[in-house]
Amino acid sequence: MINYDEKLKKLGITLDKPSKPAANYIPYTISGNLVFISGQLPFKNGKIPITGIVGKDVDINDAIKMAEICAYCLISQLKQACDNDLNKVKKVIKLGGFVASSKNFGDQPQVINGASDVMVKVFGDIGKHSRFAVGVASLPRNAPDEVEGIFEIDD
Amino acid sequence: MINYDEKLKKLGITLDKPSKPAANYIPYTISGNLVFISGQLPFKNGKIPITGIVGKDVDINDAIKMAEICAYCLISQLKQACDNDLNKVKKVIKLGGFVASSKNFGDQPQVINGASDVMVKVFGDIGKHSRFAVGVASLPRNAPDEVEGIFEIDD
Amino acid sequence: MINYDEKLKKLGITLDKPSKPAANYIPYTISGNLVFISGQLPFKNGKIPITGIVGKDVDINDAIKMAEICAYCLISQLKQACDNDLNKVKKVIKLGGFVASSKNFGDQPQVINGASDVMVKVFGDIGKHSRFAVGVASLPRNAPDEVEGIFEIDD
Repeated sequence: MINYDEKLKKLGITLDKPSKPAANYIPYTISGNLVFISGQLPFKNGKIPITGIVGKDVDINDAIKMAEICAYCLISQLKQACDNDLNKVKKVIKLGGFVASSKNFGDQPQVINGASDVMVKVFGDIGKHSRFAVGVASLPRNAPDEVEGIFEIDD
Repeated sequence: MINYDEKLKKLGITLDKPSKPAANYIPYTISGNLVFISGQLPFKNGKIPITGIVGKDVDINDAIKMAEICAYCLISQLKQACDNDLNKVKKVIKLGGFVASSKNFGDQPQVINGASDVMVKVFGDIGKHSRFAVGVASLPRNAPDEVEGIFEIDD
Repeated sequence: MINYDEKLKKLGITLDKPSKPAANYIPYTISGNLVFISGQLPFKNGKIPITGIVGKDVDINDAIKMAEICAYCLISQLKQACDNDLNKVKKVIKLGGFVASSKNFGDQPQVINGASDVMVKVFGDIGKHSRFAVGVASLPRNAPDEVEGIFEIDD
């Protein structure tokens, strides 16, 4: 058994309370042993620290930091889906990464790496996942990134 | 047992015949008890009533109405996947919402709410779902929205 | 039993070695009998032959060819997920198609057909799948398309 609260602390990761959806839907659903988590915007203390289009208003390093926060938000929701016990997580299956991008920005993989790296730091080998990373025109609340996820947990 | 035909009627929802795919694929696949429904454009009587980029050509209220139609199309396909019996639906698992958006448009959640609200009106508590809502550059046939879905049904 | 190596040869399809992810994630994950394959860029011999925005820099026929290559890359990864035996594939469940698009480009279905047609050519009836096709602002490495996939295989 891993003490995930300790591990997160050592990694310097503070989970906010799971943020409420920005609209009329729920943060996650469970089907069998799969948890589908809604697209997470990089909310920290109720705010998105950096907003705008990556490659134009937002530089890549800031976009990476925002993707890290998206990952924290995913883990916060996942923890709730697991009745607060992250030991129930069997595998990170997939992340879907959306980066608000200017036409000439092509480093979405590096940006979404911010989220992928968090998964591997926190969950180790079972944190390795499949993924897409694409550049979209704009995101809710002018966020630079949004990341959704599918996770496998104990039944 | 719910009489969904009656319920849809009371809600003022008329389902078109499930629209044919715009290309060489099929409207849905079933794996185990999950139904994966292809991205639905807002077709009503074979036409997309309002087209263009949201935040530029299309205002938010029209975009919401189009998202409602996307939801009707999803339900129409889902009904077919259920051999016409929507009582087989166990849960709406996830909607993926794409909104053709101008760079400065950030109200994708409100737009895709059009689809989410339909799911909850029709299916009640089991209609609550996870979701993403993102702003894309453009959509097939110049549609303002496209919504895909994953649903859990009886085996 | 189908000899897929023969079949691919007859179709004139050469699979490259499965390409390595462009960042810190893995090419596929397996949960139960579902394989989730990461978004594939159209890599051929380690390069993306044609890059740019479809409808502006890239014409539709070239975009279709690139979508075909994305499908070859998916099949290459899928083969590895099946321990090199494509007879283990039970169904192509879903493709997610992203096309880097100019604002006025609305033929994403025709483009992603490039990938869909490959699946049906290779796998026949079990190759028919659900799908979305959307127009995004930009893609990693300036690729014109990216396609992800979910497949059902033998347990």
